[in-house]
Amino acid sequence: MSVVETHHLAQRSPLHAFLAPSSIAIVGASADPTKRGYKAMVGLVKGGYSGAIYPINPKTDMILGVKTWPSVSAMPEGADLALICTPAATVPGLIDECGRKGVKGAVILASGFRETGRPEDARLEQQLLDAAREWGVRVIGPNTSGMFNLHHNVNLLALANVKPGDIGFISQSGNMLLALVLEAEQNGHVGFSTYVGPGNQTDIGFNDYLRYLGEDAHTRVATLYVEGFRDGQRFLRVAREVTTAKPVVVYKSGSTEQGRAAARSHTGALAGSYAMTVDVLRQAGVSVVQQSDEILPVAEGLALLQQARGKRVAVVSDGGGQATIASDRLAEAGLELPPLSARTRARLAEILLPQASLANPVDVAGSSDARPGILADCLAIVAEDEAIDSVFLVGMFGGYHIRFAEDLLGDEMRGAEAMIELARHGDKPLVIYSLYAPVKPPALRRLHEAGLPVYSSIEHAVRVLSALGERGQYLAGRAAETPTSAVSPTPETLALFATAQNEGRDFFEFEAKALLRAHGVAVPEDAVVHDPAELAAAAERFGEQPLAMKVLSKDILHKSDAGGVRLNLVGEAALAGAWDAIMASCRAYKPAANIRGALLTPMAKKGTEVIVGVSRDPIFGPVLMFGLGGVFVEVFEDVAFRAIPLTASDARSMVEQVEARKILEGVRGSAAVDKDALVELLLAVSGIAEAYPQLAELDLNPVIAYPDGYAIVDARVIVNQAAVIQPD
Amino acid sequence: MSVVETHHLAQRSPLHAFLAPSSIAIVGASADPTKRGYKAMVGLVKGGYSGAIYPINPKTDMILGVKTWPSVSAMPEGADLALICTPAATVPGLIDECGRKGVKGAVILASGFRETGRPEDARLEQQLLDAAREWGVRVIGPNTSGMFNLHHNVNLLALANVKPGDIGFISQSGNMLLALVLEAEQNGHVGFSTYVGPGNQTDIGFNDYLRYLGEDAHTRVATLYVEGFRDGQRFLRVAREVTTAKPVVVYKSGSTEQGRAAARSHTGALAGSYAMTVDVLRQAGVSVVQQSDEILPVAEGLALLQQARGKRVAVVSDGGGQATIASDRLAEAGLELPPLSARTRARLAEILLPQASLANPVDVAGSSDARPGILADCLAIVAEDEAIDSVFLVGMFGGYHIRFAEDLLGDEMRGAEAMIELARHGDKPLVIYSLYAPVKPPALRRLHEAGLPVYSSIEHAVRVLSALGERGQYLAGRAAETPTSAVSPTPETLALFATAQNEGRDFFEFEAKALLRAHGVAVPEDAVVHDPAELAAAAERFGEQPLAMKVLSKDILHKSDAGGVRLNLVGEAALAGAWDAIMASCRAYKPAANIRGALLTPMAKKGTEVIVGVSRDPIFGPVLMFGLGGVFVEVFEDVAFRAIPLTASDARSMVEQVEARKILEGVRGSAAVDKDALVELLLAVSGIAEAYPQLAELDLNPVIAYPDGYAIVDARVIVNQAAVIQPD
Repeated sequence: MSVVETHHLAQRSPLHAFLAPSSIAIVGASADPTKRGYKAMVGLVKGGYSGAIYPINPKTDMILGVKTWPSVSAMPEGADLALICTPAATVPGLIDECGRKGVKGAVILASGFRETGRPEDARLEQQLLDAAREWGVRVIGPNTSGMFNLHHNVNLLALANVKPGDIGFISQSGNMLLALVLEAEQNGHVGFSTYVGPGNQTDIGFNDYLRYLGEDAHTRVATLYVEGFRDGQRFLRVAREVTTAKPVVVYKSGSTEQGRAAARSHTGALAGSYAMTVDVLRQAGVSVVQQSDEILPVAEGLALLQQARGKRVAVVSDGGGQATIASDRLAEAGLELPPLSARTRARLAEILLPQASLANPVDVAGSSDARPGILADCLAIVAEDEAIDSVFLVGMFGGYHIRFAEDLLGDEMRGAEAMIELARHGDKPLVIYSLYAPVKPPALRRLHEAGLPVYSSIEHAVRVLSALGERGQYLAGRAAETPTSAVSPTPETLALFATAQNEGRDFFEFEAKALLRAHGVAVPEDAVVHDPAELAAAAERFGEQPLAMKVLSKDILHKSDAGGVRLNLVGEAALAGAWDAIMASCRAYKPAANIRGALLTPMAKKGTEVIVGVSRDPIFGPVLMFGLGGVFVEVFEDVAFRAIPLTASDARSMVEQVEARKILEGVRGSAAVDKDALVELLLAVSGIAEAYPQLAELDLNPVIAYPDGYAIVDARVIVNQAAVIQPD
Repeated sequence: MSVVETHHLAQRSPLHAFLAPSSIAIVGASADPTKRGYKAMVGLVKGGYSGAIYPINPKTDMILGVKTWPSVSAMPEGADLALICTPAATVPGLIDECGRKGVKGAVILASGFRETGRPEDARLEQQLLDAAREWGVRVIGPNTSGMFNLHHNVNLLALANVKPGDIGFISQSGNMLLALVLEAEQNGHVGFSTYVGPGNQTDIGFNDYLRYLGEDAHTRVATLYVEGFRDGQRFLRVAREVTTAKPVVVYKSGSTEQGRAAARSHTGALAGSYAMTVDVLRQAGVSVVQQSDEILPVAEGLALLQQARGKRVAVVSDGGGQATIASDRLAEAGLELPPLSARTRARLAEILLPQASLANPVDVAGSSDARPGILADCLAIVAEDEAIDSVFLVGMFGGYHIRFAEDLLGDEMRGAEAMIELARHGDKPLVIYSLYAPVKPPALRRLHEAGLPVYSSIEHAVRVLSALGERGQYLAGRAAETPTSAVSPTPETLALFATAQNEGRDFFEFEAKALLRAHGVAVPEDAVVHDPAELAAAAERFGEQPLAMKVLSKDILHKSDAGGVRLNLVGEAALAGAWDAIMASCRAYKPAANIRGALLTPMAKKGTEVIVGVSRDPIFGPVLMFGLGGVFVEVFEDVAFRAIPLTASDARSMVEQVEARKILEGVRGSAAVDKDALVELLLAVSGIAEAYPQLAELDLNPVIAYPDGYAIVDARVIVNQAAVIQPD
């Protein structure tokens, strides 16, 4: 076996062993049609499963013509997968039995574990997990709706009418699976590969399932309905790998407080800030969908259409009204409608009537009334325009022979064939909206058979174009970039943390700034004064530069309230006066405070306030935040998040993402700020946060951004008192 | 005839005479199946039209068994309606002929008029209009897709499969009509009453059609797809009347560029925007839809469901995942999920399993698995809760017998009957989402037959709940309120306008403030100084109050740039110094400037900057704008608009609408501002703007809002030089 193959095997998900099982045990198999233990039998037997089936039921001999076995122990072999349909209390014992028998994986349907919030139920789940870990049995659930793998005829849900196909689906809501299956049956062009309900994720989590779907040859798009991640950091790592190879679509529920409240009472999942979750998922190349009725259309489009290179769309339309709607939606979604090239316009002019509009959208203005196939010709022409990444047909294609004259059907079918040709052999996606989609006329049925989606909603079609464009931009840029490296701690910086931990406190401002400075961040010079006798030297050192003086005491958190801050000080006399005032005021404010002295910092010039922060999310690990200061953060929550470490594109995209970006570009006569400097600062902070597990949180607030560079006015580091220092 | 009846007739739309015609002429009737003149014949003959049909065609004797006439003049009588299918150039002559014959209304299909942008085509449209006005012929179009009135079997579009029903539809896009008809055919529970394509609106505009639909007994919801209003002010007046009687749904595409181009002030620049259009339509009680695929679901819901009193929704669900999605969408749409009363919870607990969640959303948690009809019982219970305005069922109702056991169908049907009972006889709307809607199982078909919509998208269902809630709140409050009255101009205020017009200039700041003061608006005292000798008296008058001094010259627009502003002046010496500096600087800046002196105003205390403005939109007339100052207006365009005159609720809702409202409520330690005072200011400005047609634009920018009252720091009035003064 070659090294490469070994490496490949090491990467391979262990889930293949039981998600495509050669033998299945149904624990709690039943002849009662209302029971899951019956439905699963039906799903396997009627679904044409070719592996061995072991119904476990001590009370009958045969179910649906399959011999039963009295217990797991009594089976003739250890099945690859066991479906456990019995109540919660029986599960830990059964897992133990499965383990002894050599069962590789178990699907546990029962609820009544951790999700109830009761300690005894959480203990039961722990027993289950302990048994599974002891024997190496992998567990799906508990509290799961089950699983299917249609390309192996494994249908443990016994869902009727589920077409095998390209969509892998992992969903914490069984109803959402049902909804997508029914929607696909009615309108969709796609079917499903593997479905799993991860339930409580006690053993296998979203990251494991995503890796499996990433490797699964039958899955072209991994689609996830998520109420809560358990190991978000690992999920992001897996997503970053998988998204380079195939699209990953995620709907994350709990976008509002109400939704989060409902989610907690459902599976007991922890839900972080929704906006942060969306940001870090997109950073990993995930196509985030924010409306539940867009999940299937987007997954379908990403599965079936060519990749787009970017967000530049050409619209071809036979009706001005719908072209306007399409333009409105495209613009709202951040897609572009660039002007078409002179050559494209000339080629269109050759085939269209004089009244046609050759701008983008192209409005054929009656040119297609007697020749609907001409729409396909227009699409082929605009698809060759170099300024265009994707092509969007909007209107009544497919319905011309219904609306105008029956003999137009022939030309519609010709048009459909030409569109199929373009979609298959062109290098740009062709997205089709037709108002006749609901009635499925022949030309649209032909497109359907050829695997070309036709959308019945302009809004859904635009969402598909948006997902294609975002993915194209991601693959063209960020996917290939390397994140910034962690900085190397120095003895001095490690000592800062050690001292703070020894003293059971967070960093003083000067220490936070020293940390930043040690790693190349430009921080204005400052001076710590322990004794008023040092003020003269400080006054000489800073000269005419106005200074701020701030009290230095771990016991005084709100320095201004304590009278511990004086601004705009120039010269020794002013400094001395400020010192006396600060010390008097702070001693009065908190007589027991241990006051070490004061910090002198130069006053920052006026500029644009921004905030840079680091925190450690319990789900996604260290995240960087960027926003404009003051009300933009506090009132509008207009901030961007990225998981650490960041690439240069990640950092740049944060600055471009915030609504208040226009202020950075200069308003009301002020000049644009130095975005490159801010991007460098974000990358430097990313490298620092990655290097120091002792750093729990960091706040640079405010940073004043200027047309040239920035000034860090205040810096705060919260120290994780428990983190072990790794001086290596 | 009684006075009341006379009044009623006076209100009645003249469109009834030809939108429900007793006889129809088809000018350009044809036997060629590809021609509109053939299709219209088919639509009438096959559609069972019972009135007289006069096909006009000099070349044949008979079309579809109907005798033709060689010309309009040759008809035996003047038809109520003429459909003109011939080219643009023929139209003015035909209208003249129709007028002489006594035809009441004409539908003109041809394009090639004003919409081309060519002067000769605009002249042709004017000729058409002149002929129509001369004879009193009312014109639909030109450039229209046509019309139908299905309750009178008038189907000039010859659309197949259009079900007669409750939705009146006026659309500037014929494709949008086709799309809605096909959507209704597939999924909808509704049909259509009257459709008209208003085309160029050369004679009849949206306001006329809306009045007609408001009066039409067959129309329960007036639905409009609008690319542009011609007389928006009149439309708002009609909408305000119609919306009190029946719902009006508007989808507005694009935006009016005219408003922006004409603007000279901040307010003007932001007016004419799409956001302004949405605001003023909502003010008139219109249900504005912003996604094209929500038009039919919303119209359907408003047509078929009970009215809601407000926005408080109870959700009943059989699946936690979809309850979470519903909660997210409801919260995003500004709907509330209040807790259920103790009594409601107790009643639910009696019929549900112990694991059910009795919060809102109610999650029956398996209680319905064997008894799906229990969902209807839950809906009936929560509908009786006084804290609830509407009831929302989310889940798999209708599919239980498919998913679980066939014998559940009976209980599903029982549940359907109970839901129908609740929907018909309850006083709250019941909105149903079912993931089984796409497959139309028996219980959902039963609901369908009973006219109860079942939505296949949670998002669309929530949009319906939102429209119901908004309409409920509107009817409960604003619909009944009287707008504020115009103020009465005084000789002094009229003289201000007369002087400015005589001098060909806008108001000086002190004049704008005098106008406001004259109508009871609190404006800080100020003083105009023409000569430095007056400064001593001014210094004495203002005492220790710090003053701003601003140059007074119609030739200096940018006072700060000219060095024409000095701040924080106290005492005669400071005033004298400032005067000299300002005069020297301004003379240097613009030697030819006519400088009248300077304005002294007290410096305002710090507070929250807001902006209040008036502009005259070319479509919607005078509009009031409110927002927070600075970047909130200039960068975020976070402003609210209302058409003038405003009601007190309109004014209050402006303050509540802006995103930055949280700042008004006090952030970062600052106190909440006096919203009541701002509301009074908005109403006062509304009354002033209404009273003076000479006032083209007004900007109060900034107004500083305080916990008690406000201070108007700067005021600008742009004078309409052409407006006639009406000193009445």
